[in-house]
Amino acid sequence: MEERIIQFIKNIVNQHGYKGVIIGISGGIDSAVVAALCVKALGKDKVYGILLPERDSAGDTVSDAKLVCKTLGIKYNIISISPVLKDMGIYSMEHNFYFIPRKIKQMVVMRKWKALSKTDAYLEDLYNKGSGEFLRGISYYRVKHRIRMCYLYMEGEKRGYAVMGTTNKTEYLTGFYVKWGDDAVDIEPLLHLYKSQVFQLAKKMNIPEKIISKPPSPDLIPGITDEYALGISYEELDRILEKIENRRSLLGEDRDKIKRVKDLMSAAKNRNIRMLSIK
Amino acid sequence: MEERIIQFIKNIVNQHGYKGVIIGISGGIDSAVVAALCVKALGKDKVYGILLPERDSAGDTVSDAKLVCKTLGIKYNIISISPVLKDMGIYSMEHNFYFIPRKIKQMVVMRKWKALSKTDAYLEDLYNKGSGEFLRGISYYRVKHRIRMCYLYMEGEKRGYAVMGTTNKTEYLTGFYVKWGDDAVDIEPLLHLYKSQVFQLAKKMNIPEKIISKPPSPDLIPGITDEYALGISYEELDRILEKIENRRSLLGEDRDKIKRVKDLMSAAKNRNIRMLSIK
Repeated sequence: MEERIIQFIKNIVNQHGYKGVIIGISGGIDSAVVAALCVKALGKDKVYGILLPERDSAGDTVSDAKLVCKTLGIKYNIISISPVLKDMGIYSMEHNFYFIPRKIKQMVVMRKWKALSKTDAYLEDLYNKGSGEFLRGISYYRVKHRIRMCYLYMEGEKRGYAVMGTTNKTEYLTGFYVKWGDDAVDIEPLLHLYKSQVFQLAKKMNIPEKIISKPPSPDLIPGITDEYALGISYEELDRILEKIENRRSLLGEDRDKIKRVKDLMSAAKNRNIRMLSIK
Repeated sequence: MEERIIQFIKNIVNQHGYKGVIIGISGGIDSAVVAALCVKALGKDKVYGILLPERDSAGDTVSDAKLVCKTLGIKYNIISISPVLKDMGIYSMEHNFYFIPRKIKQMVVMRKWKALSKTDAYLEDLYNKGSGEFLRGISYYRVKHRIRMCYLYMEGEKRGYAVMGTTNKTEYLTGFYVKWGDDAVDIEPLLHLYKSQVFQLAKKMNIPEKIISKPPSPDLIPGITDEYALGISYEELDRILEKIENRRSLLGEDRDKIKRVKDLMSAAKNRNIRMLSIK
């Protein structure tokens, strides 16, 4: 598994004449694994990390991301995207929010996330449906990943570097990414792996235990972790996804969980359409 | 030609439940034609224009874009992207540039555009090659269209609107767009038409003569028009492209021009690769 990805990265970088690669280091497991694979493929001098925190990032985002870069020995830079987001007006909706303690903020947001949608917040998100306030919330969190993409390309293109993606198969099949945000990259080395396979890979590589053990979160909305939004654990999700993909029997799986996964998959198809044109 | 596109827009907007469409109005012909087609497909109340000028936009960018919106009777908003670009540091390279008269600015930039690349600026651009200063220039102009994309999606998603694209077939085949910038949209209604067909369409529609007759320009770098960057006129380019695409004889065409088009097409393949992953 590991060796195949390392060869893949090496080949593409050589074929396209990239001078190195740039990775947005979030402090999460996916970007840590991608960075570790790139270091093995290209050497640490050709791998550049960028940390792009903003006002609503979790308290350990920057320290965890630094820990990843330092463990791997790669150069990195920290750029806050808050000034740009502020210019775009996305903080103005909730201007006093900054002074509320994080725990209370999370509670308020988690309650709002559920209350604002009539049925299921994440499914409504995938279909771009919901009340005006819900849609505004959606547009305000998505812009964060899109602005990160702009920074990654600006810094990458200056250096002649490829922009690495960190999306995995579980995220792709459930639409758990931002269209033209974290999916807008040059190379996706994890797109053929389920999230649980990324965990397996991480355990075999030079990834700090703290990064592996923290609950995965897109770090876009305070309190909203991956599993909270998806409404199912990664373990169950991957097991059912894999059975559906390989047309294996679902006997013994919980019926509600199967329904959840199928709902996610069909809603994800809506996001996975990139751009429509006349043939 | 016109009726087919109108039906296409109508169908997609209905199928996906979009409440309307949003278009970045540049003052150029492509976005004017897309807006006019959308008005015919959906009615003017469901079409929203956004003007996204910046410090280096041409003097008539905003007035021409307003003219388009007013002629079509659509609502529009003007948001300068300069504050965001300033935050990102793209103006700092040339901070006194603002006070130089536009004509001199254009001359300086056009000379630099040629001088900075050893062989051919636009081909180097397509291959992401060139000196450090050239690469920085590239990264600084591309971010403009990417930031526009962020604004279009933010404003579109708030309203439940689809983001319309304006890329045509000539631009696609020659890579004349910004990856994850003006190509990152929901619907591309002109992608099957050569630029010359877009001109034909414009003449039959409600597009002001001033918009049709001005020289096409991406309006990203002062002085760099489409034909200047491409190194060939649209008339010749489209004629040769069409012959190559339909495997018709190139007898009678200038050999240098044929070479130019073929060079553009093969370099464009590099840009047209979106994202690479392990199958």
